Formats: sequence, C-alpha cells, structure tokens
Amino acid sequence: MLSRADENTYLGHYERKIKQSFDDIVPTLKRISAIQHEPDFEGHAQKIARDSLGFPMPEDVLKNAWVDQLDMRRLFAWCVFQVYVRFCDDFYSTAPTGAAEELAGFLQSCGFHSLDISPCADGRLAHVVRYVLRLSPRAVRRKSYAGALFDVEDSVQKWVQTELRRYREGKPNAADSATRYLKVVVYHFSSSDPEHQGCAAHGSNTEKAAQAGLEKLVSFREAIENGFCCGASIDLLLIGLDTDTDAIRIHVPNAAGEIVLERFIESAELYSKTFDMGRDQALKTIDTAIRVVEPDVADGMCRLVAKLIENNISQIDYVKENYGKTYPDIGHAERFVGAGIGFEDIQIRNLMYFSYLDTVEEGAADLDVGIKIFTGLNVKHGLPVPVVVRFDYHGHIPGGQQRAAQRCERVANALAQRYSSLYEKGLLHIMQVVRDCDSNESLQVLMCTAEQDEAGGH
Amino acid sequence: MLSRADENTYLGHYERKIKQSFDDIVPTLKRISAIQHEPDFEGHAQKIARDSLGFPMPEDVLKNAWVDQLDMRRLFAWCVFQVYVRFCDDFYSTAPTGAAEELAGFLQSCGFHSLDISPCADGRLAHVVRYVLRLSPRAVRRKSYAGALFDVEDSVQKWVQTELRRYREGKPNAADSATRYLKVVVYHFSSSDPEHQGCAAHGSNTEKAAQAGLEKLVSFREAIENGFCCGASIDLLLIGLDTDTDAIRIHVPNAAGEIVLERFIESAELYSKTFDMGRDQALKTIDTAIRVVEPDVADGMCRLVAKLIENNISQIDYVKENYGKTYPDIGHAERFVGAGIGFEDIQIRNLMYFSYLDTVEEGAADLDVGIKIFTGLNVKHGLPVPVVVRFDYHGHIPGGQQRAAQRCERVANALAQRYSSLYEKGLLHIMQVVRDCDSNESLQVLMCTAEQDEAGGH
Repeated sequence: MLSRADENTYLGHYERKIKQSFDDIVPTLKRISAIQHEPDFEGHAQKIARDSLGFPMPEDVLKNAWVDQLDMRRLFAWCVFQVYVRFCDDFYSTAPTGAAEELAGFLQSCGFHSLDISPCADGRLAHVVRYVLRLSPRAVRRKSYAGALFDVEDSVQKWVQTELRRYREGKPNAADSATRYLKVVVYHFSSSDPEHQGCAAHGSNTEKAAQAGLEKLVSFREAIENGFCCGASIDLLLIGLDTDTDAIRIHVPNAAGEIVLERFIESAELYSKTFDMGRDQALKTIDTAIRVVEPDVADGMCRLVAKLIENNISQIDYVKENYGKTYPDIGHAERFVGAGIGFEDIQIRNLMYFSYLDTVEEGAADLDVGIKIFTGLNVKHGLPVPVVVRFDYHGHIPGGQQRAAQRCERVANALAQRYSSLYEKGLLHIMQVVRDCDSNESLQVLMCTAEQDEAGGH
Repeated sequence: MLSRADENTYLGHYERKIKQSFDDIVPTLKRISAIQHEPDFEGHAQKIARDSLGFPMPEDVLKNAWVDQLDMRRLFAWCVFQVYVRFCDDFYSTAPTGAAEELAGFLQSCGFHSLDISPCADGRLAHVVRYVLRLSPRAVRRKSYAGALFDVEDSVQKWVQTELRRYREGKPNAADSATRYLKVVVYHFSSSDPEHQGCAAHGSNTEKAAQAGLEKLVSFREAIENGFCCGASIDLLLIGLDTDTDAIRIHVPNAAGEIVLERFIESAELYSKTFDMGRDQALKTIDTAIRVVEPDVADGMCRLVAKLIENNISQIDYVKENYGKTYPDIGHAERFVGAGIGFEDIQIRNLMYFSYLDTVEEGAADLDVGIKIFTGLNVKHGLPVPVVVRFDYHGHIPGGQQRAAQRCERVANALAQRYSSLYEKGLLHIMQVVRDCDSNESLQVLMCTAEQDEAGGH
C-alpha cells in the first residue's frame, strides 16, 4: 500500500475548508434575501454574514435595499471576491505547498532542470500539480490553456529564460550539466461519462485530446531544435487525467524522447495491483510495468514516471476515501474565472476556470469556453460570472507594479467590451488584483465592479 | 567636408523611385475615373494603369463600373497594396542595406554587441536607421512605438535572447567579451514649427519627449539590473531628431552610463563647423566637441557618437541637396499604416506609420494615433486608410508560418472591430501578409479587403 494517509488527511482538510467557504455564500445570501424588508434588516443581515462567512456585507448595499430590493448579483460577486482574497492571503502562509527543494533535487537526479506543465484550463484540473501529481507548486511552472493547447512561443520564451539563468547564475544547475527542460501536457477525459464530461475543447474525444497534446509538444521541441543550434532540445511527457477519479495515464517516451500514443501505463491498474503489497515490492511492480510498456525508456524518465504513479496512487485513494467511486461533481462546478498571469494559489479542484493570458484578444478562445461554462453554472440561475483579473509582478523591478496594474485595467476593459451584454446586465463582475510574486505579501485589490459605484469604480 | 556624395546619389535615387511609385497612384486613378462611362473603358483604363503604374487594375472592379460607378476607395487601397508588395519584393534584392558585418564589427570595437533602436512610430522617422544614421538595417534591431515609448518587457525579452545566444553560440561574440547591449531611443521635434510638427504623443513638446525617452531607457536598465544578478546591465543612448532637416542631437552619457538631458551635441552645428575642413581635421573637431559636452565619456561610446555624427552630416547634406532648407513635407504624409512585426524594408521617410504590435489590444494607443493621422491625410478627402498587417516568421521552425498567419487574421479582425465605423464605410482596407525572414523570399499575401469579394475574402 503506497498511499500516504497523513498527507491525504492534511490535503482533505485544506480542500474542504476552502470549498466550504465558497459554498457558504449562496445559503447565507438566501437567508439575507429572505429578511430584506424586515425591521432592523441591516443589523440582522450583518450578524448572519459575520456568523456564516466571517465578514460583513458592504453597508451601502444593505442600506439601499428598502428602496428597491437587494442587488443580489452584486452581493454574490462581492462575496466570491471576498472569499477569494481571504483564501489567497491564507495560501501564502498556511497552504500545503510541499517540499520544493526536494522536488527540484529529485528532478535533476532524473535529468530535468525544469518542469513546465500545461494542463487544460478546465477547473477539474486545477489541482493537478499539488493533488493529482503531489508535486510542489513552487518547483513547477504551470500554464493552463483550453484543451491544454499551450502557446509554443510562450514556452520557447520560458526555455530561453531558463537556459540563460543556468549560464549566468548556475541556477537551478550549471548549463553544462546533462539535464534538460521537461515540458508536460496534461489532457483529460471522463471514465464514467466519456462522451459528455471529457474535454470540451476537443469535443469530449479522448483520442483527439491526446493527439492534440502530443502535436503541441512536438511543435515545441521542433521550435527549440530548429530555432537554436548546438544540439538544443527538450524532453516531453504526455499525461491523461480521468477527472472522475483523478487516476492518470502516462504515455511513456522511449530513450529518443518519442511518444507513441498507444503506449501508456495507468495508475488505476497499479493502484489495485500494489494495494496489498509492501512498499518495496509495490515500487518494483511500478518500475516493471513502465518497462513493459516502453522497454527503451531512459532511466531518469522511468524514475520520474514511477514517482508520478506512486504519488498519484495516494490521490486515487484520496478520492475514494473522501468521495467514493467518483467525485460527486464530475462536471464543471468552478466558482469563478481567473484571467491573467499568476494564481499559483489555485491548487484546488473545480474552484477556478483558468484563462492564462496577456490580452483578451489572444485569450479569446479560452475565455469564451470559460464564459460558456459559467453561463450554464451561474447565468442561467440569474447569478453573475465573477472574473478575477490578476497579474503578478516582480516587486524588485521598478515600475513592475505599475505595469501590472495597467495590464489589469486593459484586460478588464477588454473583457467588459467582449462580454458587454452580460456586463451591462450585472451578470459579469470583475475584480482587478496584482501581487508581488517575489514576496509573501497579500493581493492588492485595485478595482472591483461589485463595490458600490460611490466607493469603487476609481 | 565629411558628406559622402556617392552614397547620397544612390540613396536619393532609391527614395525618389519608391515615393514616385506611390505618388503616381492618385493621378492615375483620376484619369481612369474621368473616363469610366466612356466606350471601351476597360481597355483604355488598363492601358493607363499599365503605362503609369506598371500593373493592370483588377478586372472585376472595372467591369462593374457601368452599373454604378467605380469603387475608387477600393481601387485606391488596392493600388497602395500593390505598390507596397512590389516595393517590398524589390527591397530584398536591390535595396541599399549597407554593410552589416562591417557595422557589427565597428559596434563591437566600441563595446556593444547589440544595437536596439526604438524610434517614434511616426513615419517621419521611418528612415532613421538607413538614412539619418546611415546604419545597416541588417545589423540593427528597430522597434518603433508612438512617442518612442517602447515596451520594457519586450526589450528585456530581446536582451535575454541576445545574451543566451552569446553563451550558446558565441554570436555575435562570446558571453565573456567585455561588450554590452545598447538600447537607443530616438525622439523627435520640428525646428521650423516646434509647437505643431513635433511628436504628437508628447503634445509636440520637445523636453517632454526627451524626458519620457530617458525615463523609458532608465526603466529598461533597472529591469535588467534588478531582474538579473551577477552585474547584468546595459548601455543607453538618447537621440533627438529634427524631422524638418534630419539633423540630430545626441545626449552623450558619461562613463557611468548616466545621461543628463542638457548635455547634448548637435550635428547641424558640426555640419557647419566641419564644412570646409579636411576629413582628419573634421573628425578631430567632432571628437573634441563630444568631450567638451561630456568630458567623462567612455572611449567606445565617444567613437560611436562620433560615427553617428559623421554619418548624419551626410544626411543633412542630402536633405539640403534634394529639398533645400527643410523637407517640403514637414508634417505627416505617410502612405499607409503598417501593423505587426517585420517591415525591415521600410527605410524611407514618411512612407509608413508603424505600429509594432502583437495585439490590437496592447497596440491600441499607437494605432489610434495612426488612424488619427490618416483621418487627416486620407479619410477627410474620401480616401481609405490602407493598413498592412504583417507578421514575419522563421521559416525553419515548423508551424511558424501557420502561427504568423493566425496572428495576421486575429489582428485584422480586431482592427476591423476597433475601427468598425471606418471599416464598414470602406474607409479602412486591410491586407494581411506574412514573410519568412530567414529567406530572401517575397511577401505572401494572405488576404486583402480591397480584392473583390468574389475573388478575395478567402
């Protein structure tokens, strides 16, 4: 039995706490709504809010309720944003981020100096780093894209930065160390409802999702190999995630780095196989299984794949323990959309739909998918889509904060324009935040459309 | 007398040839317009077109003239695009691009392994590299921005690429060579009408333009120094251009790289001073003048500044010879807008307003300035704004062409949306082109709104 019970308890507590704080919003607002025309409404409402959510409602909104009625859309978005800000601040002090240095060391021992993961932007993959693969978010680069169709130029740029740092600073290791940049794509599917709950960007077709992921990976490698001389190359890994159970399949590359879609191992199978085994025997079984699938696998890659399978076995157990055979929410149940660059704190499943972008113009396809999901989740129930626009910046670079703030404003304006029919009806609310990613400081909230116009809108 | 007569003759011939081919469009179209209801109109019109412009008009447009009347807006845009495509193809075979290797060697001898120039996007600075400073475009990076307010992150990215190439490939020189990346800003002003014909982005205020340029330069250096360790830094240079005469002022930095706005030398003054001198004495005079302005100037920087002054003296002479005291077109007279990445071929004054951009969302401020300029130049006379959307790509990277084509389409759509009132009236025409910048091949025209709907629009 490879599953780590202590870690599962810890992660379970964290996930439930966060989810609960979002799930408390609607029942609380219902209670407040029910009493909005009663005497002493304001005092009563604030007590309910403080007791259930831990923070008071904006006074102005409550005060004006008698004139017309409570602006529940605004209040709902405001609460979601409040909970997010609190959750995020908490993350940098208490969240389970795992052992980053240990992971970096392990990766280097396997032949990789950088781990760059592009999962699908789907909220059901938001926990892929910390939960599904049990890695430390601090030692991994994650950029999510709809359909896991990552931007090749963006990854090339990151590769260039990474390699220069090795030459100039010897970090994370010297440029002449025999390690490579590893790019991972995580596509997804649904084992219990494959034709409806798979990846929307690929028409819920698992083969298409895998194929498209592989093509992107190969394009990235070709861009490096052809764009740079002197034997420049990278390593690739393709992983499929069953979003119902969090079990994974890993397409094991051969020693030449080639991936054949049909050659993969499944963690669910190894979970059952190793369930009654001691640790040593279980690890041996995993190693053998990998080498059966791809006899020509490189040793370092084999060790990494084995570690991911081992880690994922804890997650399979976690889902079984906490939710049974599958998650109860096998479909979308995100609480808000996150657009921009940052969101390291989002390591929880089905919490946020992630649109990694510099501009709405480039991110339009991803955003459209997100808005469509939230039209089903929120808008059709009369609730708004809460969008957090966030750009992290490096505080030690002068002007960085200012430039991040400008990007926030530009993206927020473009969002309001692209989805103007929702925005004008109060069915799209936007909060603009920036964060200094060199520090452990809090988010800085710059603007929030759910604030009253008098106070906000500045 | 330092002016190089032969070079001036050569450059003059090239400039006149290009300008003339654009200037022939309106008279030719007027002649064609005048005969549009005459018998044998089509044959007659095609003869006029071939004789005056060197190419025939699109048959469909002529054929339909009898029904209503000639769509002159479409025809005008079509001709501008045709001339541009021909000009551009010509550039890569016959244009005077100067000696790139010689320049690279000279720059390194002065202590610079990379020369990255950001002039204002104003068309009156489009010839700054090849004409005003007499440098080879092949050995210089040029990215134009309204007000010369370049994007710091974009420049940081270029710095990272440049430095990695030095480490990995030893190009243009080894990473341990004692040379630095030099960033140059060129702002501009008008000596004969300073309050109206200066830089629009800075309210035609020369001091503001210089100050803003300096601030950007310092921000870039701070981003390098704070964003990277181990003594990373760059060198800076600030140049002002008098767009009436093409004379320059150079703000000479001291040995610590600091620039004081008040300390500059003017090429116009040195032009007069050295006019009757022999070459050696003239060069000595320039060197002395630089050291008087900044006694603490570094030797390499002093040599570069001296070379730029010497080169610019030829340009001052060129303007005097060809146009007299000032250019006849001291204001805007651009023929089209160029948006995207590329346009190395544009080294001619007042030909193109350049909007260097990845997205309309980020480039909106620059584009708005361009559209405003062309509203005065074209729209108020009933003529459309011709916009060439162009993305160059590296042909040896698989998928590069396809990605460039996608960017073209995205930007063209965003343009049509942002300026929809012009677009819908046929007052904005867009041609989408890509080019493999690793080859000497022609532009590939992907789409052109000035083609007939039947033929184009694909």
